[in-house]
Amino acid sequence: MKLLRYGPQGQEKPGLLDAEGQIRDLSAHIPDLGGEVLTTLDSLKSIDPASLPLVPGSPRIGPCVTGTGKFICIGLNYADHAAESGLQVPPEPVFFMKATSAICGPDDPILIPRTSTKTDWEVELGIVIGKPGKYLTEAEALSHVAGYCVINDVSERAFQMERAGQWTKGKSCDNFGQTGPWLVTPDEVADPQNLPMWLTVNGQTMQNGSTRTMVYGVAHVIAYLSQFFTLHPGDIISTGTPPGVGMGMKPPHYLKAGDVVELGIEGLGTQKQVCVQD
Amino acid sequence: MKLLRYGPQGQEKPGLLDAEGQIRDLSAHIPDLGGEVLTTLDSLKSIDPASLPLVPGSPRIGPCVTGTGKFICIGLNYADHAAESGLQVPPEPVFFMKATSAICGPDDPILIPRTSTKTDWEVELGIVIGKPGKYLTEAEALSHVAGYCVINDVSERAFQMERAGQWTKGKSCDNFGQTGPWLVTPDEVADPQNLPMWLTVNGQTMQNGSTRTMVYGVAHVIAYLSQFFTLHPGDIISTGTPPGVGMGMKPPHYLKAGDVVELGIEGLGTQKQVCVQD
Repeated sequence: MKLLRYGPQGQEKPGLLDAEGQIRDLSAHIPDLGGEVLTTLDSLKSIDPASLPLVPGSPRIGPCVTGTGKFICIGLNYADHAAESGLQVPPEPVFFMKATSAICGPDDPILIPRTSTKTDWEVELGIVIGKPGKYLTEAEALSHVAGYCVINDVSERAFQMERAGQWTKGKSCDNFGQTGPWLVTPDEVADPQNLPMWLTVNGQTMQNGSTRTMVYGVAHVIAYLSQFFTLHPGDIISTGTPPGVGMGMKPPHYLKAGDVVELGIEGLGTQKQVCVQD
Repeated sequence: MKLLRYGPQGQEKPGLLDAEGQIRDLSAHIPDLGGEVLTTLDSLKSIDPASLPLVPGSPRIGPCVTGTGKFICIGLNYADHAAESGLQVPPEPVFFMKATSAICGPDDPILIPRTSTKTDWEVELGIVIGKPGKYLTEAEALSHVAGYCVINDVSERAFQMERAGQWTKGKSCDNFGQTGPWLVTPDEVADPQNLPMWLTVNGQTMQNGSTRTMVYGVAHVIAYLSQFFTLHPGDIISTGTPPGVGMGMKPPHYLKAGDVVELGIEGLGTQKQVCVQD
């Protein structure tokens, strides 16, 4: 299933994308896509999409999950991206938190912060957790996945790298976490470690990779994180980005107001954002 | 006012501490202490506490705020603590995120993670945000405070410092964020930069400081953070710890199962935790 949330910000309703690419209203079956509902997604599979109300027009698409408690990002998880950043692949996963207030819809604008000089992009495979888990083994890990999605881990490199402290400072600005369009359930993702992914800026290809070159894979990352805390339904894990970010270019290339960013992962849909000065 | 949440985990009700130190039930007036309710706390001041139902017995006290989106900690914000950590006071505030899933009641146990060897304590002044704010000035900042509270920023130093990556790894374990007992409204805190604070382990004083020696004060920290993202009602800012953490001792001193940690800040109440092996 491809599940989604549509409507104005803060008033999203749950929906399902049918085989014709039309949005069907799920609100008679679930209140929203978040929390305990994520533990029961299997029960939606028996619904005939044609029996659901068709949503007219082209509503805004919201983030494909709500009620996220933790927005966890894995750093330097593609060897080539670590190299372009001038950093080593770490001996175990590096992670940091993005503020959950950064989460927005897949086509919501990238807000360039007032004092930003180095706003950058990162196409990433997102994992949405579907049931609580702690001290998980790799063998158990995938059963905790509600689904996968596209994430743009927007990053301000001066805030992240040149200001005192921790990466979260450059990762947490408002609208720095486009999430969706769809939450794609695992039965539709044959192999999460073999998904082509890409990102363009103003039509020019910047990232063109695959989750195949991920260093620490989905199952490993889930099991690893669960050694440090309970993973809860709605938690998002963004698994790192392949090469091609603006910081790694010679000379570096950063986003400015008016730029258009498009990105996607095979089978998980696409995003399109306009950059706007905040 | 001293506001609080009481009852079993996940089923807390809002309450008010009366002048006799008794808990009064506020649930006829507000659904809980979180979200939009935090913007309306002033309206509670007109209630006569004696008109509220008295809560019998000694219920568990929960975290004094719910629905926290961001749990932000300021690092190295006391010069003496930076020195004991072998680190410099940073030229601008360092911050990191604790997982919101770490938040628990003030007397809930400290869970020592399975592979932990260096679980440590940190008494801190917590700020709870009461209304949304972005790009705030220092002059505006204090009007965004819903109240203050005690926080134990429990930390696993090996996870934080010796494993690849970012501090959040050692700061986010379950029950690593005791918060409360009370949310004390600003009218009862004459000067947040002049609050004695202390922490003992098994009755022995470990930390004995004051918010007077904080490097970046409450107003500065709120204004600073708001340059990076919108602060929302329920967000918590933990403002750093004075000297006396276990990591800074010679030899270092860490917590083990059975240890009892007590801590408090003048006017904001006290916490008491037993350490339990997870």
